[in-house]
Amino acid sequence: MLILGVDPGLERVGFGLVRREGSKLQAVEYGLIETPRIEIADRLTLLHDQMRELIERTQPDSLAIERLVFAANRTTAFDVAKAIGVILLAGASLGKPWTEYAPPEIKQAVVGQGNADKKQVQFMVTKLLSLAQAPKPDDVSDALAIAICHAFRSRTALR
Amino acid sequence: MLILGVDPGLERVGFGLVRREGSKLQAVEYGLIETPRIEIADRLTLLHDQMRELIERTQPDSLAIERLVFAANRTTAFDVAKAIGVILLAGASLGKPWTEYAPPEIKQAVVGQGNADKKQVQFMVTKLLSLAQAPKPDDVSDALAIAICHAFRSRTALR
Repeated sequence: MLILGVDPGLERVGFGLVRREGSKLQAVEYGLIETPRIEIADRLTLLHDQMRELIERTQPDSLAIERLVFAANRTTAFDVAKAIGVILLAGASLGKPWTEYAPPEIKQAVVGQGNADKKQVQFMVTKLLSLAQAPKPDDVSDALAIAICHAFRSRTALR
Repeated sequence: MLILGVDPGLERVGFGLVRREGSKLQAVEYGLIETPRIEIADRLTLLHDQMRELIERTQPDSLAIERLVFAANRTTAFDVAKAIGVILLAGASLGKPWTEYAPPEIKQAVVGQGNADKKQVQFMVTKLLSLAQAPKPDDVSDALAIAICHAFRSRTALR
């Protein structure tokens, strides 16, 4: 099973493709989709088109995204929510199912602690995927963590 | 000039098409786009596709939308922001420009008071567009108010 994990944002979106075979996890591809500081509607169009291209090219079986739960800055949070809207659309219009996970669920699944910090998440992502180096920046390691969380959760669900 | 006004939401989106010729305003078409309570990603896809179809069919010159500024319920506001994301995309991917207006700007333009209530907005929309009956529900009268606001603002901008 190939899983695409997405850490959403307007300025940049982290993505990570993880293959699960039995209990083995492998990172297939990971990186960032970035958008320039242009008019929001055009920015959302760029983001949507790049996300759609990524999903069409890599054909994941499942899509997993971090749920937006809190933000001190409401305007920024609304912009991230608009980005989530077009990201969800990019998958759904290609017939791919999304699962949303709250940040504590992701940390619990990957680190074993719902309140783990970014460093711990990055450490465990590196270890679980047997990577030579920690994936950077945080958006990318978070996206891989979301994919790993979904791999663990869907395995449990199949039992 | 043909203007599409949009009152955004996830459950229902009000829309109103207003034609401005000189100082004359005319309502061309108005109504609601509604989505059933299905999975959010599929719901956003339905909303996006219907909004895109509306814009393609009616070919407005300008698109105007109410800016999301505040909500007591954060989860609901995030869902509205996701809907705004796919609505903005539907216009921008067809090359149409969007303008966002905050609720007090819209009320100021239509009623002359930034804190006018829904009833006053509905009354002035009915009057300014010479409609036989008040457009209902509020989402529709708000969408027409947004289009009227843009008609007034763009006229001022041209002077």
